[in-house]
Amino acid sequence: MILIAHGSHLEKLEELLALAGELGVPVKQVDRAELDAMAHGSSHGGVLAIASALPRLNGNQLMEVLGRIDQPALLLLLEGVDDARNLGFTLRSAEALGVHAVLIKKHLWDFDSVEVARPASGAYERLPLVQIETVEPLVQLQKRGVQLLGCIAGARQTLYQSNLTGPTILAIGGEKRGLSGAVRDICDQFITIPTAGGPSSLSLSHAAAIVMGEAFRQRSCQNVATD
Amino acid sequence: MILIAHGSHLEKLEELLALAGELGVPVKQVDRAELDAMAHGSSHGGVLAIASALPRLNGNQLMEVLGRIDQPALLLLLEGVDDARNLGFTLRSAEALGVHAVLIKKHLWDFDSVEVARPASGAYERLPLVQIETVEPLVQLQKRGVQLLGCIAGARQTLYQSNLTGPTILAIGGEKRGLSGAVRDICDQFITIPTAGGPSSLSLSHAAAIVMGEAFRQRSCQNVATD
Repeated sequence: MILIAHGSHLEKLEELLALAGELGVPVKQVDRAELDAMAHGSSHGGVLAIASALPRLNGNQLMEVLGRIDQPALLLLLEGVDDARNLGFTLRSAEALGVHAVLIKKHLWDFDSVEVARPASGAYERLPLVQIETVEPLVQLQKRGVQLLGCIAGARQTLYQSNLTGPTILAIGGEKRGLSGAVRDICDQFITIPTAGGPSSLSLSHAAAIVMGEAFRQRSCQNVATD
Repeated sequence: MILIAHGSHLEKLEELLALAGELGVPVKQVDRAELDAMAHGSSHGGVLAIASALPRLNGNQLMEVLGRIDQPALLLLLEGVDDARNLGFTLRSAEALGVHAVLIKKHLWDFDSVEVARPASGAYERLPLVQIETVEPLVQLQKRGVQLLGCIAGARQTLYQSNLTGPTILAIGGEKRGLSGAVRDICDQFITIPTAGGPSSLSLSHAAAIVMGEAFRQRSCQNVATD
């Protein structure tokens, strides 16, 4: 359902109202105070949509998604994300850089959806999100020819020396603990992002952006850079 | 000056106390309530350092910094950053990826230092920050052989087709308005980050990470990728 505050300029909402009509979504006008009370924050602009929680995919449903895409799978596995906003930004980058689905362990999913959705800028609603309970789905994917690459500080091979054009899971861990032992144990290869060294480092979402950006580059030009 | 709450485990602070002694920084024990009142947030761990505001560099001082480095300059020009936290993360990535200084227009500098410093993870204190009033310092840099590259969505040339190994300013604009006309007018070249298209896009700090990551890659391997 879509709620619109009394006094909103309906001519500015023409496109939205047309689309709602087309899709059969009910639209209701309410007092602005009612809308304020329901909205997170005050920047709602007089329009609020009430949506049910998005379904999460399980391992089997992921296989169906992968069966439908006509290019080598590119998946992102995140461990140890400690902040809804960073997760949201990572989903946004993932969608922009051609990732087909993002995998997160179920017991680590403890986020306020609104806090994830806002920085994700629509990617939270569009990008398939898979909750896995164990590493078993990863092993299944490996059996089907998907390589699992663990991004680890100090790995001998750099991101740019690895071939990311085939079916790939990019595994990225949080800043505090990195990747879990369970995931490290089954990685096919470890890669690192070269940095200037010293005390500096990259945050999880920015490291992820660079890794996914390189995967997208390699897939776009099919011209693997080597050192 | 460093303040330590009464009751803190001093043996855990040994290294800090030794360094403070070495550098002649006074250390004082105070009540925890006093410390709570002065700190931003409650995660201070019983230790608080009081520092004066960091000096910002002007154009002349930037030239001095560039005179001291023994490699081609890599500078980041940010316009339209609308959030202290995003700025902080960008400074962190910039330091990790070998940027020598970050330039921001003076009238756009309206941030709470604490909000910038926290996500910057030390980079705010270490990386030279230059406030410029006009584009004149950019023109001066161009006269000295520094190329000004504007990152713009939809530019014909991709990031990966451009040579970032020489002296370079990477200019990145905010999500709302992009780069200003004044900066666009003097750019030597425009480049774009290839993305999957559709409604997805990258945030300023994540776009910056990818651009700086590519510059660092090219400078590390001196092996420019071409499509």
